[in-house]
Amino acid sequence: MRISELVERTGVPLATVKFYLRQGMLPAGEAVSATRAEYGEEHVRRVGLIRALSDVAGLPLGRVKEILDLIDGPEDSAPGLFDALGQAVAALPPYLEDAQPPYPRAEAAIAAIGQVYDERYAAVAQLERALEAVEAGGIPMTDERLQVYAEHLRAMAEYDLSRMPDEGGREAQLGYAVLGTALYDPVVAALRRLAHQDVAAGRLGVEETPKGT
Amino acid sequence: MRISELVERTGVPLATVKFYLRQGMLPAGEAVSATRAEYGEEHVRRVGLIRALSDVAGLPLGRVKEILDLIDGPEDSAPGLFDALGQAVAALPPYLEDAQPPYPRAEAAIAAIGQVYDERYAAVAQLERALEAVEAGGIPMTDERLQVYAEHLRAMAEYDLSRMPDEGGREAQLGYAVLGTALYDPVVAALRRLAHQDVAAGRLGVEETPKGT
Repeated sequence: MRISELVERTGVPLATVKFYLRQGMLPAGEAVSATRAEYGEEHVRRVGLIRALSDVAGLPLGRVKEILDLIDGPEDSAPGLFDALGQAVAALPPYLEDAQPPYPRAEAAIAAIGQVYDERYAAVAQLERALEAVEAGGIPMTDERLQVYAEHLRAMAEYDLSRMPDEGGREAQLGYAVLGTALYDPVVAALRRLAHQDVAAGRLGVEETPKGT
Repeated sequence: MRISELVERTGVPLATVKFYLRQGMLPAGEAVSATRAEYGEEHVRRVGLIRALSDVAGLPLGRVKEILDLIDGPEDSAPGLFDALGQAVAALPPYLEDAQPPYPRAEAAIAAIGQVYDERYAAVAQLERALEAVEAGGIPMTDERLQVYAEHLRAMAEYDLSRMPDEGGREAQLGYAVLGTALYDPVVAALRRLAHQDVAAGRLGVEETPKGT
């Protein structure tokens, strides 16, 4: 397809598509004449991924490029899929630039739920910060709560991984992991609040739903 | 205790304590002479709650006051505990000031998981926005995923409600609900990422943990 059709198919303005091309975020089309390049379905998919990461997930452009580089890196030097998944998810907020090991709360929690502790993993610093906050807020994590949360979040993670696309290569898999993490966090948060509401209604013997403001 | 001891016990500067008093966020002490008021443990607890809501959870002062008003409202006019819990949690971000019914995605999802739909509840608008985003990002919610997530988030909510304080009245209960919601969202998000990592390591046959950046 011509670039005009790519614009039409994706709904992304021509200037933006050209910007993605200049930045190397979108591979060049196949030159079919001195003035015309041909684009394919892979370009439609890539533009969709860039828009999802930048506009929907709200990632800064530098982070979007990090993720695209993980997808596009030459096979021989690119990290394996597992490392690439970890690095791609690490491109998501929260960005704790000032976080430095040690992470004692996270280390203890990760040991308690039987997972491998690796302080280089971004979520470890995020967990440390979050556990500091619950402690400072007067509702420190308990072993019991940690086990309950970890069990159920693991079951959800098992489901998520079971639905990772088999086809579409690294682009589809890393896109699924990154967007699934970033975009489903707010879904999880909203469903969590609704679950609290529903359980509270049962416990407090309420028939009606509350008046949220 | 004197106000100086309240300052020492809470670690909050005198000027800030006086500000809380002027704003009516902290009840006045008991006047024991023309120049001296006496403060009690309830003042220590209240200052702790205000700091947790403002400094740790990061709520704007207006939202903190909304929550304190729900705690302090005169018994006869105050909403029942269930409504107060809903209104208190609605004082948390995300603030979707421009959200307006209808919320078709949220309504369908809430019906599918057998809960009562009430568009006045703040989490309904949040769910609608989140479901719009996953759709726009190319990973729309499915019935199957919804059931899996809802089942496990409900089990976590059952646990949370089972640990709601019996003592300490509305202050303790609303404080637990609001801080538990706000401060545990990041814990849930971090544990969710770590669960993904752990499950992915198992599925991809990886021994080592990834190099997060």
